[in-house]
Amino acid sequence: MRKIINKPEHFVDEMVDGIIAAHGDRLRLLNGDRRIILSAYPRKEGKVGIVTAGGSGHLPLFLGYVGQGMLDGCAVGNVFASPSSQKMADMIRACDSGRGVLCLFGNYGGDVMNFEMAREMVEADDIKTTAALGRDDVASAPKEDAAKRRGVAGIVFAYKIAGAAADKLLSLEDLTALTQRALDHTRSMGVALSPCIVPEAGKPTFSINDDEIEIGMGIHGEKGIELRKMISADEVAEIIFDRITADMEISRGDEVSVLINGLGGTPLEEQFIVYRKIHAFLTAKGARVFMPHIGEFATSMEMQGLSVSLIKLDAELRELLRAPANTPFYTSLNK
Amino acid sequence: MRKIINKPEHFVDEMVDGIIAAHGDRLRLLNGDRRIILSAYPRKEGKVGIVTAGGSGHLPLFLGYVGQGMLDGCAVGNVFASPSSQKMADMIRACDSGRGVLCLFGNYGGDVMNFEMAREMVEADDIKTTAALGRDDVASAPKEDAAKRRGVAGIVFAYKIAGAAADKLLSLEDLTALTQRALDHTRSMGVALSPCIVPEAGKPTFSINDDEIEIGMGIHGEKGIELRKMISADEVAEIIFDRITADMEISRGDEVSVLINGLGGTPLEEQFIVYRKIHAFLTAKGARVFMPHIGEFATSMEMQGLSVSLIKLDAELRELLRAPANTPFYTSLNK
Repeated sequence: MRKIINKPEHFVDEMVDGIIAAHGDRLRLLNGDRRIILSAYPRKEGKVGIVTAGGSGHLPLFLGYVGQGMLDGCAVGNVFASPSSQKMADMIRACDSGRGVLCLFGNYGGDVMNFEMAREMVEADDIKTTAALGRDDVASAPKEDAAKRRGVAGIVFAYKIAGAAADKLLSLEDLTALTQRALDHTRSMGVALSPCIVPEAGKPTFSINDDEIEIGMGIHGEKGIELRKMISADEVAEIIFDRITADMEISRGDEVSVLINGLGGTPLEEQFIVYRKIHAFLTAKGARVFMPHIGEFATSMEMQGLSVSLIKLDAELRELLRAPANTPFYTSLNK
Repeated sequence: MRKIINKPEHFVDEMVDGIIAAHGDRLRLLNGDRRIILSAYPRKEGKVGIVTAGGSGHLPLFLGYVGQGMLDGCAVGNVFASPSSQKMADMIRACDSGRGVLCLFGNYGGDVMNFEMAREMVEADDIKTTAALGRDDVASAPKEDAAKRRGVAGIVFAYKIAGAAADKLLSLEDLTALTQRALDHTRSMGVALSPCIVPEAGKPTFSINDDEIEIGMGIHGEKGIELRKMISADEVAEIIFDRITADMEISRGDEVSVLINGLGGTPLEEQFIVYRKIHAFLTAKGARVFMPHIGEFATSMEMQGLSVSLIKLDAELRELLRAPANTPFYTSLNK
């Protein structure tokens, strides 16, 4: 097993210890609990809290977006496993300052169920919560079943936009509606060239030949649309772009942000080669690209592959995306 | 070949096209030449220029550090190959504003030779230049042959420090001496778990079994000190830490910055597990850690493995490291 780890069962705790050792000026644990990460920045009076949660193995997702101008807290699960509802409830309580908490997370069974229970638990403490779910992966279900779609890297746009909006002291209701609008305008799709290995399992999540590519694969190795013989970077870009724009029309004059997300084992060079083509497709449609993001935002440990996310912006979403943010894994200056 | 590319011979040009498409507000090409990247930020009057150069395949190295508060220009070579002396000379000319240019680069034969020729070429135009070389890899030669050592990820500290110092309008002589001091206080060492594939070659740079680790390997797959059966993350940290501190003493009260550098295919989670241990070793010695960097700073495309760099700081180096910087691949707010 090609991994630089100690005992597999200590993987998540040791990772969190490393993150807190490095970034303890910006992140803190709730009562020393390695499964609940909170922002160490002072919170604005009257700000609605924003929290997320998810399994480990996806850094910088999920905890990497806790910080100034993004999330207030994150509950951390085992590798590819949802954290418990109890941890989520503790986190929500810690992130409420009286105006309620938005739970913003990807559409995965465990996370959905546990957040539902956690929200019930904190209701007893008179904490108001809402939920907004990332469902950006167009390959995971057809348009008529869009509510069943998985959330993938596109949620990073929603984290950024929601965080900036919360800092403007929007009400929970308004913040939730705005975040939902950002999510509704986001689509993603990915390809994978290799599996990854969950440390405690010790074996690959699936098998794929060296000369094959899985189109539409999920970030836990969920089956895609099609397994093909390897294709070129331009073909990858074209397949993804066509599928996304068949689902969400991009027209002349639209303003769009692009997120190219390396899954862990794919070099930045290749991500830029794909970006180049996506940029050209958008320009050919008469759309303008605003603030492209290229790098690793939502990984599957060492998996090779990448995903492309597009978000259609309006003036308000654009300004919120552009607002400064400062987390250990996402730093942006207002340009 | 598990790569998302088009024709291998277009790899570098298409990568540069992608970078300029994404970051054309911050980077620009010299006269459309895809092998010479310049900062698009306005340059301070009277600032000494700082340039670098190197082969492709190491993103964010080298061109990723061109921008505000770091480098003024970078000449871009083919994968793992030095750019020509002509490109370097053109770049130096473009980065001189009358006070001279510091050439700051890693100690590799081709780069050393080509920079030497380039500096001679621009001398004819009355441009003063100096050179400072990264030689941080302790595994590449013994201490008595330290001048022969390769430069690896530790050069990022020198880029950051030199860039901040140049913005204070130091003379070429003073800037070079200060940069040399930063380089002299930096040590690195890496391990590799897998090779990478140069696109035009189409086959792995070397072979290694799934259960083996090469201690001290270079970023082009240069042979290390020892090939071993796989060891734990804590053992990796210990071997590297012992070797670095045998070469550069770390004592109680020292202030040290740490850079954990993923080589391309190693997950962030594993990098933080190793960081945790390096942090503990430093703390046990009574040293303080300042501004740790964890992530991908100098890669070998999809190679699995990581390196650790330490720099011993004094008050001046610390403040320069801390100064804000803004490049497409390195953003730091003054904290």
